[in-house]
Amino acid sequence: MRGSMKILALDSSGLVASAAVVQDGVLIAEYTVNYKITHSQTLLPMLQELKRMVELDLDTVDAIALAAGPGSFTGLRIGSATAKGLGLALHKPLIEVSTLAGLAYHFWGSEKRICPIMDARRSQVYTGIYTFERQEGKSGFGMHTLREPCAIDIREILKELNEQGQEVIFVGDGIPVFQAVIEENLRVPFAFAPAHLNRQRAAAVAALAAVYYEEGRLVSAKEHKPEYLRLSQAERERLSHEV
Amino acid sequence: MRGSMKILALDSSGLVASAAVVQDGVLIAEYTVNYKITHSQTLLPMLQELKRMVELDLDTVDAIALAAGPGSFTGLRIGSATAKGLGLALHKPLIEVSTLAGLAYHFWGSEKRICPIMDARRSQVYTGIYTFERQEGKSGFGMHTLREPCAIDIREILKELNEQGQEVIFVGDGIPVFQAVIEENLRVPFAFAPAHLNRQRAAAVAALAAVYYEEGRLVSAKEHKPEYLRLSQAERERLSHEV
Repeated sequence: MRGSMKILALDSSGLVASAAVVQDGVLIAEYTVNYKITHSQTLLPMLQELKRMVELDLDTVDAIALAAGPGSFTGLRIGSATAKGLGLALHKPLIEVSTLAGLAYHFWGSEKRICPIMDARRSQVYTGIYTFERQEGKSGFGMHTLREPCAIDIREILKELNEQGQEVIFVGDGIPVFQAVIEENLRVPFAFAPAHLNRQRAAAVAALAAVYYEEGRLVSAKEHKPEYLRLSQAERERLSHEV
Repeated sequence: MRGSMKILALDSSGLVASAAVVQDGVLIAEYTVNYKITHSQTLLPMLQELKRMVELDLDTVDAIALAAGPGSFTGLRIGSATAKGLGLALHKPLIEVSTLAGLAYHFWGSEKRICPIMDARRSQVYTGIYTFERQEGKSGFGMHTLREPCAIDIREILKELNEQGQEVIFVGDGIPVFQAVIEENLRVPFAFAPAHLNRQRAAAVAALAAVYYEEGRLVSAKEHKPEYLRLSQAERERLSHEV
């Protein structure tokens, strides 16, 4: 690691709002709320609260990481606007982390296939497939993307998982929605992540962002755009009218 | 699961102060701080903040879980006093979770040996060894204790791990202190937990407490005592004077 590194991370991609500060491989603070209040009412107050509690000077942050999608359109827009605002005001780069990669990163070091599933409505999921491999010469693991983030029918990803023939851990808010479909269609051993590992956490986004930072995967606040993976309902309706 | 279950969890066993609420397998809120402020100044304000944010009525909680030790004497006493106070005032049972088991539970589903190490000073660690096994007929994993929590010389636990001959993941604040000793003495593949998984989290305590709750492993606020695993320095000094 090149000297000290401090990352502020935000995740408001789903029902969860989460903020975290990670410095040099240690979590300094994290605040996560999964409640019916809208993110526009929670995310900034949570960040203020963290800032106050650990006397964080935002000027000392090296980068602002965010769960850049997929996820809820409103949630992603709030997260992006907040991160952009902070990046522009503080002259700091942003680090975009796939919401799905952030979820999969909970299972760092696992030998199983990790399959995040987020409910995308209309029996679709935002999903991907991830694995971990030991990093040569290091006492750690790197995460690899076997299936790039996509919005597909739940049955399609289950078919792929059956074809791969490996044990799977599911993570994400798609579990309660699709549990029965999974139990009915999956032919490989599987497990559903427990409470402390089954939803978005800004600390996981920050930890993965620290890896990206080392690799130089930064964007400017101006460049950043959330990754919706699908058109919004409004856009779909407009297109269908145009046809 | 028998109906709805809500658990409030506290962990102030180490440098980290953390509070979380888990309901029916979902994390509702979590607040974690790893900063130089003493837990007596952080733990209750953090709980108040969570309570306010998710409009938590403490009367609706089924049990109060806590990281019951080992750990810092002061930290454990603050956690115990807080949990006891809440338990007595609200007439709720307590669930004692080993601090080491809580740390190991971050690696739910792992096929590796999980070895939490907390710095216990005088080249000792609070440690244990844990594994996960698939629960028959369930889509989940149960955690098993291979080595009960103990305070021993770091070299002793490394010797045991070498004898077991299995890959190990280390977790806990002992990593920065003992990294060099581990790298020098361990003959099996090993890894050090990354930022989002290497310190105490009340959500992990809550998730494990939910398992214990189902098994009826409750204590009354009156019965509860923290598990120091060692005598405090004051007690050691008194004993050495008596000899």
